[in-house]
Amino acid sequence: MRKHFNEELEEVRERVVYMGGLVETAVHRSMHAIIDRNPSAAESVLKEIEPEINRLEVEIDEQVLRLLALQQPMAVDLRFLSAALKITNDLERMGDLAVNIAQGTARLLAQPLSTPIVDLPLMTERTNWMVRSALDALVGRDVELARKVLATDDEVDAIRDHIFRELIQRMIVSPEIVERALGLIFVTRNLERIADHATNIAEDVIFWVEGVDVRHHLHDHV
Amino acid sequence: MRKHFNEELEEVRERVVYMGGLVETAVHRSMHAIIDRNPSAAESVLKEIEPEINRLEVEIDEQVLRLLALQQPMAVDLRFLSAALKITNDLERMGDLAVNIAQGTARLLAQPLSTPIVDLPLMTERTNWMVRSALDALVGRDVELARKVLATDDEVDAIRDHIFRELIQRMIVSPEIVERALGLIFVTRNLERIADHATNIAEDVIFWVEGVDVRHHLHDHV
Repeated sequence: MRKHFNEELEEVRERVVYMGGLVETAVHRSMHAIIDRNPSAAESVLKEIEPEINRLEVEIDEQVLRLLALQQPMAVDLRFLSAALKITNDLERMGDLAVNIAQGTARLLAQPLSTPIVDLPLMTERTNWMVRSALDALVGRDVELARKVLATDDEVDAIRDHIFRELIQRMIVSPEIVERALGLIFVTRNLERIADHATNIAEDVIFWVEGVDVRHHLHDHV
Repeated sequence: MRKHFNEELEEVRERVVYMGGLVETAVHRSMHAIIDRNPSAAESVLKEIEPEINRLEVEIDEQVLRLLALQQPMAVDLRFLSAALKITNDLERMGDLAVNIAQGTARLLAQPLSTPIVDLPLMTERTNWMVRSALDALVGRDVELARKVLATDDEVDAIRDHIFRELIQRMIVSPEIVERALGLIFVTRNLERIADHATNIAEDVIFWVEGVDVRHHLHDHV
């Protein structure tokens, strides 16, 4: 019975990581669509990846609830299962945010800015590093890596500020681009929120491994 | 033992509702600060209400995890406790969003728009109705009310679109207000996200009461 339970825990962990990989792909493709002006990359996010992310959230949650009901997990296992519920919730919202980005792609690409925003690829890369590393920290019970994710969120916020300043300046100089620039501001915001969710996951990993609730101490109000 | 467990469940429910009331107050005060140009209303959100919301999240989650570990809740109780974990998570983020609004108040009020955005009080009122009703639905196990919350989210999104159109139009006509208008666009976005979280809570209430997962059927991708 105990072994079976451990196998189920391992299966939950694997499915959460698989779900995280889908989120990473969704972020990559939706941003790739904008940065490389390739709208078809966004379509698969809407039609294939995000429905799969939603399906996984429901399935993993059901599995976790069944384990909570039928087993009596204690201490570290209980913390892991409660972290898994929160992480699937975060991943599902990250999928929604990638969808927000993907949905705006066609309109953004119909009238692109004459010169691209150079920091957007950097922000995308840093955000996806956070997503991947938060899940790697889950697999490897790696608290040190999880803390690096928290630190990188500050870097992402700084890049966001830089992008905002540039876009605002361009809008003031060229009011005719207001709508287009606003579209990119929303993309940047969505990306920032994806990074925030990766931070939440890293916090849940630390909570699970250390049994310490860092949410409102180490890294207030991300 | 069973009675004691039921009392604990009732206590969790009461504390979640109390936490929800604090969120409602935070949203009300931060928006009141902007709409009625009263920056002091935003201060209590930052200094008193949001720290209390964060404290409650940690405490309620600990209580729920203890109940999951020490009792063996089945069926409807298990669903309630898993819903409670998700709801505290939503409420905590709503608190953060109210903080985002409150933090921007001083800058917004330093240079207000010459004519106010008339739909902002309406959007605030509708959003707070959603927050209150989602929690009322939790208390009264009221699935019908929870479904009304889901429907009202569409109304809030329509008001948001209207506000965005008005602000974009003003920015194009008067580029010198770009930064101020952008501040209000972010306020509107934060309010919209608070409404989205109220929708999540309503979905969790339906899930708890009916044992049916409506998240990816009735109301796709809020």
